[in-house]
Amino acid sequence: MAGFHVRSVLVTGSNRGIGLELIKHFIGKPNPPEVIFATCRDPEGAQAQELKKLASKHPNVMILQLEATDSASIKSAAKKAEARLGGTGLNLLINNAGVMLPSTLESATPEDMLSVYNTNIVGPLLVTQAFLPLLKKAAQGSNQKGMSCSKAAIVNISTVLGSIEKTPETFSFVPVVSYRCSKAALNMLTKCQSMGYKQDGILCTALHPGWVKTELGNFQPNVQADLTVDESVSGLMKVICDLSEKHHGILMSWEGNTLPW
Amino acid sequence: MAGFHVRSVLVTGSNRGIGLELIKHFIGKPNPPEVIFATCRDPEGAQAQELKKLASKHPNVMILQLEATDSASIKSAAKKAEARLGGTGLNLLINNAGVMLPSTLESATPEDMLSVYNTNIVGPLLVTQAFLPLLKKAAQGSNQKGMSCSKAAIVNISTVLGSIEKTPETFSFVPVVSYRCSKAALNMLTKCQSMGYKQDGILCTALHPGWVKTELGNFQPNVQADLTVDESVSGLMKVICDLSEKHHGILMSWEGNTLPW
Ligand SMILES: NC(=O)c1ccc[n+]([C@@H]2O[C@H](COP(=O)([O-])OP(=O)(O)OC[C@H]3O[C@@H](n4cnc5c(N)ncnc54)[C@H](OP(=O)(O)O)[C@@H]3O)[C@@H](O)[C@H]2O)c1
Ligand SMILES: NC(=O)c1ccc[n+]([C@@H]2O[C@H](COP(=O)([O-])OP(=O)(O)OC[C@H]3O[C@@H](n4cnc5c(N)ncnc54)[C@H](OP(=O)(O)O)[C@@H]3O)[C@@H](O)[C@H]2O)c1
Repeated sequence: MAGFHVRSVLVTGSNRGIGLELIKHFIGKPNPPEVIFATCRDPEGAQAQELKKLASKHPNVMILQLEATDSASIKSAAKKAEARLGGTGLNLLINNAGVMLPSTLESATPEDMLSVYNTNIVGPLLVTQAFLPLLKKAAQGSNQKGMSCSKAAIVNISTVLGSIEKTPETFSFVPVVSYRCSKAALNMLTKCQSMGYKQDGILCTALHPGWVKTELGNFQPNVQADLTVDESVSGLMKVICDLSEKHHGILMSWEGNTLPW
Repeated sequence: MAGFHVRSVLVTGSNRGIGLELIKHFIGKPNPPEVIFATCRDPEGAQAQELKKLASKHPNVMILQLEATDSASIKSAAKKAEARLGGTGLNLLINNAGVMLPSTLESATPEDMLSVYNTNIVGPLLVTQAFLPLLKKAAQGSNQKGMSCSKAAIVNISTVLGSIEKTPETFSFVPVVSYRCSKAALNMLTKCQSMGYKQDGILCTALHPGWVKTELGNFQPNVQADLTVDESVSGLMKVICDLSEKHHGILMSWEGNTLPW
């Protein structure tokens, strides 16, 4: 971990919540990345003001417009990122953007199921497709042995609520059926990516950030998330630094524990 | 198993493949169901001729139009089923209709991802919502202890390709990313249904039919499915007869083995 250096990182959904905190932690590292792509769908919106302030103070932060359900927006972000990287690759892609809607077995609708699926898994699929050439370039350009986030990696922000095995522990108080199904599918996508990109030397891992006090985490007025965004992201950053091939294709918690599918 | 009697069953996608064979096996039981709802999306189409012939010979078979991605069609089928059941409930719902498209990490598109998800998991969700009152009625009207398919049950036809754990065994020759993600999500839905419907006494299980010589199973010209439809469905029927509460919320193969998520 001491020698851990990510030259370039991209985080989706980084205008607020866990995404914004990840940007702050990358900026605050003793050896921060040379390029930090902070993507959000509305860089001019009210919810992106804090991110804009950060970017104005830190020239290594570049804000990119990226709507995870819009191929054209993703491709345009990838083009701008490529130009900024000036011939080098992207070390670390963090698919963080996500949505959760109230959804029970009774209330779930096709619209709810499809729109949550679209953001939470089709988004990460498309973003990865668009940035794959840059990830491959980073892997090829690295002389590091094995796999790591400082070489080339895809981190999909998933959740323990996507663990089929662990569903009985939480279903009664957070059913969120459309969200659970989308994140189980994201876990499957992560496993597929780990198979498909192994030969390219790209590490693929799904991470659960804990139950975090963000807009998404605090969706239920009567139950409180238990982690601050800083606590969660401090854990995630440590896990990210330590990732190696033994974590390829698995789901891990912000505390570094492997979670069952 | 000797005393196993399903009074009423519904199978989606029953005009061909595994669905049609399930209908044949139910008809051929020594004590066949009094009502067999064979649903398909185009009862007048060329692909429904064999089913129509069966129904003309067996008055306990009732064909219902049901398009799994169309709420109105599903609700209309549920109304007709209710009328035919004449105040009794539905014992067994088999969500069998499904699609698989070629889909790799490179080629997967939003359209592919969303349409396969729509048929393979939103369909079973909606069908279950619509038939739930009839399943509950069957459970309430039964004096059997415990859970079983002869009392009230939902069987979702899933696949080992939806097992995240087992993906490394098959990914290189059948990537089918959109299909895998949809079926992992269907496994999650099955687990959620097992939690939500436990108190109603409705058994919920996901089954893998093996690799079967159907249009879906034979999609790759160069690799052959290894089971005939009869072999697969003979196994599935035995598993279905034996299902009890210890199989609630799990994924099982046509041979009766539990599969990992
Ligand atoms: N909070 C928790 O307890 C918790 C637990 C487990 C997992 N997670 C996961 O952690 C990730 C971040 O969640 P969070 O808690 O930080 O949520 P959050 O505070 O609600 O932030 C969600 C972020 O995703 C962005 N986003 C949503 N839809 C998007 C789209 N279509 N395109 C681009 N960006 C989009 C939002 O942008 P806008 O501002 O434009 O809406 C926002 O930046 C999610 O994947 C979530 O599932 C969170
Ligand atoms: N064959 C295998 O090796 C295999 C392995 C594992 C799992 N499975 C699963 O087994 C199930 C049956 O597959 P199969 O092999 O019998 O496939 P198949 O021969 O291709 O039959 C699929 C059936 O699903 C119906 N269907 C498709 N989309 C539908 C929709 N939107 N609404 C209503 N019905 C729809 C089809 O109707 P139309 O005739 O109108 O198209 C057809 O009746 C699927 O869930 C599949 O995923 C199959």
